[in-house]
Amino acid sequence: RRKEGPMTEETEHMIEKNGAKETETVVSAGDAKEMRAVILSGFGGLNKLRVTKKAMPEPQEGEVKIRVKACGLNFLDLMVRQGNIDSPPKTPLVPGFECSGIVEAMGENTKGFEIGDRVMAFVNYNAWAEVVCTPLDYVYNMPDDMTFPEAAAFSMNFVAAYMMLFEVANLREGMSVLVHSAGGGVGQAVAQLCSTIPSVTVFGTASSFKHEAIKDSVTHLFDRNIDYVQEVKKISPEGVDIVLDCLSGENTGKGLGLLRPLGTYILYGSSNMVTGETKSFFSLAKSWWQVEKVNPIKLYEENKVIAGFSLLNLLFKQGRCGKVKTVVEKLFSLYNQKKIKPVVDSLWALEEVKEAMQRIHDRGNIGKLILDVEKSPTPLHHDSPVSNLSLENSWPNQHRLRFLDSTKSDNNEYIFQWHWFLW
Amino acid sequence: RRKEGPMTEETEHMIEKNGAKETETVVSAGDAKEMRAVILSGFGGLNKLRVTKKAMPEPQEGEVKIRVKACGLNFLDLMVRQGNIDSPPKTPLVPGFECSGIVEAMGENTKGFEIGDRVMAFVNYNAWAEVVCTPLDYVYNMPDDMTFPEAAAFSMNFVAAYMMLFEVANLREGMSVLVHSAGGGVGQAVAQLCSTIPSVTVFGTASSFKHEAIKDSVTHLFDRNIDYVQEVKKISPEGVDIVLDCLSGENTGKGLGLLRPLGTYILYGSSNMVTGETKSFFSLAKSWWQVEKVNPIKLYEENKVIAGFSLLNLLFKQGRCGKVKTVVEKLFSLYNQKKIKPVVDSLWALEEVKEAMQRIHDRGNIGKLILDVEKSPTPLHHDSPVSNLSLENSWPNQHRLRFLDSTKSDNNEYIFQWHWFLW
Repeated sequence: RRKEGPMTEETEHMIEKNGAKETETVVSAGDAKEMRAVILSGFGGLNKLRVTKKAMPEPQEGEVKIRVKACGLNFLDLMVRQGNIDSPPKTPLVPGFECSGIVEAMGENTKGFEIGDRVMAFVNYNAWAEVVCTPLDYVYNMPDDMTFPEAAAFSMNFVAAYMMLFEVANLREGMSVLVHSAGGGVGQAVAQLCSTIPSVTVFGTASSFKHEAIKDSVTHLFDRNIDYVQEVKKISPEGVDIVLDCLSGENTGKGLGLLRPLGTYILYGSSNMVTGETKSFFSLAKSWWQVEKVNPIKLYEENKVIAGFSLLNLLFKQGRCGKVKTVVEKLFSLYNQKKIKPVVDSLWALEEVKEAMQRIHDRGNIGKLILDVEKSPTPLHHDSPVSNLSLENSWPNQHRLRFLDSTKSDNNEYIFQWHWFLW
Repeated sequence: RRKEGPMTEETEHMIEKNGAKETETVVSAGDAKEMRAVILSGFGGLNKLRVTKKAMPEPQEGEVKIRVKACGLNFLDLMVRQGNIDSPPKTPLVPGFECSGIVEAMGENTKGFEIGDRVMAFVNYNAWAEVVCTPLDYVYNMPDDMTFPEAAAFSMNFVAAYMMLFEVANLREGMSVLVHSAGGGVGQAVAQLCSTIPSVTVFGTASSFKHEAIKDSVTHLFDRNIDYVQEVKKISPEGVDIVLDCLSGENTGKGLGLLRPLGTYILYGSSNMVTGETKSFFSLAKSWWQVEKVNPIKLYEENKVIAGFSLLNLLFKQGRCGKVKTVVEKLFSLYNQKKIKPVVDSLWALEEVKEAMQRIHDRGNIGKLILDVEKSPTPLHHDSPVSNLSLENSWPNQHRLRFLDSTKSDNNEYIFQWHWFLW
């Protein structure tokens, strides 16, 4: 129905549906020659990231041009920043693999969306910008009730969680699942999807300070620094049916060891490779070395399954968009039935990307970090420090005072920097 | 309904249902002190097998005593004979892991079956005998229309095929499956189960002489000596969704290479380890060495799944009978809907076990080899050789004359031996 209306009605309809946040956002295509984007100038630390102007992209045949409202920030983006990924692309680049926004234009001979459509999209880099172009196959009309930050929090995490639980593994009534980083974006998606199946036991690891916030979503929560193998075995001596591992390293052997017969271990990330702010070849080598190679004959004797899952490779290297499309449809149906709902940790301006990344590096988030393209960081003056202070008690046994400092660079860009006081 | 009737009605009912083959078979328990059984006197060649009398087993608490009608012979039994398995038991032993027959007695305080019930059972060795006792959990009432040879052909092959396709992998509409030994018991079960799902493509390898017989059950058939990787890729360049491998060795690497993203490779046997009549440490070592160890990080990059499946370990070491029970129920329902039907290759007397084993070693069978406990081999005289001849043209480009010779041993047992003339 929405698609039939003219442009103005469209905009009104959205305002009505989604409130003030999404007003005045449909800009007619072609007006601006430039857009703001986050640039990664080279692989390395946080200082490689900045916001700058870039030429406005225009959609090629088969592509959709999207005015971006919100982008997802994943642990993977941090690994990209460090150059800590397989066959990294060339820099400078615009990071980001997912966004939500409004269709602004379509490439020639391209059908399937109308200008003004509210969409969620996967992008092979370039998401962290005011405008992106991406092929049709990666774009989905959002459910009417879904907000833009929710959509940006939804795509990668819920699709990955769903495919691991229901396509790679075979989650059924009465099974048990172990998930690391239960407080993160994928962790919370896994917990919610498990709750759609009767009698599923979820074991989760997370930093202790998150336990209060996420305890209802997980059956048994353990501190991330504890020996989870022992803890799981105390509760379930026969092990678990599904292990979802985003850590890698020695956790692969531990996860395989915890599997019940017919159980499935899935490696879907290797966050253990990240230690400091920049890529550490030592951590990388250690993590790689610790990943035990698996003898298929041992799997035969033990009736076990081991799998790897990379949504990005699936989408952008292996051409399985068709499969992902059917999964997104199932997920939207679950969302519309109010069985799942993305957990958004916090919204950040593009200019705050470094602080957001630091937060995910520190495992400070509960749910998803979102870059809100329309949010502008309030530049703070040095003579009014009080307004820049925020008291955080999220660290266990520790309080932090966060202080946002800003200066102007020669290029007339604001440079923001957080300072921390710990006690 | 059947269970309510008295014994005689029961027997009549069965005769009515299953015809002459199953008449006069309910022997009252406790009459005989001995029974016939196949004995494996030590690990090695065919000469380690013989039929002898053994003490009649009696059911312990929780066990069912079954008057055996038919037993399944699997490639695995051949590997057991050679001692070519992980942690082999002590000899002498009675081989055999599955049978069908009639409940003759129950252990103390044991409920769930009635005397006279027609059942299919898993046994942890000891199946190749006139009578076996096995725990309740391994016994299933057979569908009324199923014959005893069908039931003995059904249990291991269909349960393994079903669990691999639907529990370990996730067979769905439009997928593709590669199965080795497509003419064998599991191969035929896989083909039939694939046909219950719309638009499934089955790639199979089998000896060329079987192709005519099984061509309707498989979409694309290749000779077992051909480079199947090339052949599959010609037809399906993107690979296949599921690879079922009972060969092991170099086929593991080949199978993994053939997988599409999200595809599953399942190792469920290692028949490549068998070369000659006795265990070959060279073949064993070669086969083991050829099985590539798998790096989970590679699975992550390629979105692949690798699994092992051993039904015997699942049942007898890992206590997953409950899971198997639900699978058997689903399979019986498919059988009753006439969607699947075990393929029986041939029936053999217990005394013919060596010839039956030679046939499976030579990959001569199409479907399942069954030991028919009530069949007696006709002792053949040396002066009437013509009746012992059977012309086989099953070998490609080769004809064979099979000649059954029999002599009596000192123990008054018949010793049968096949002789082959090839031209």
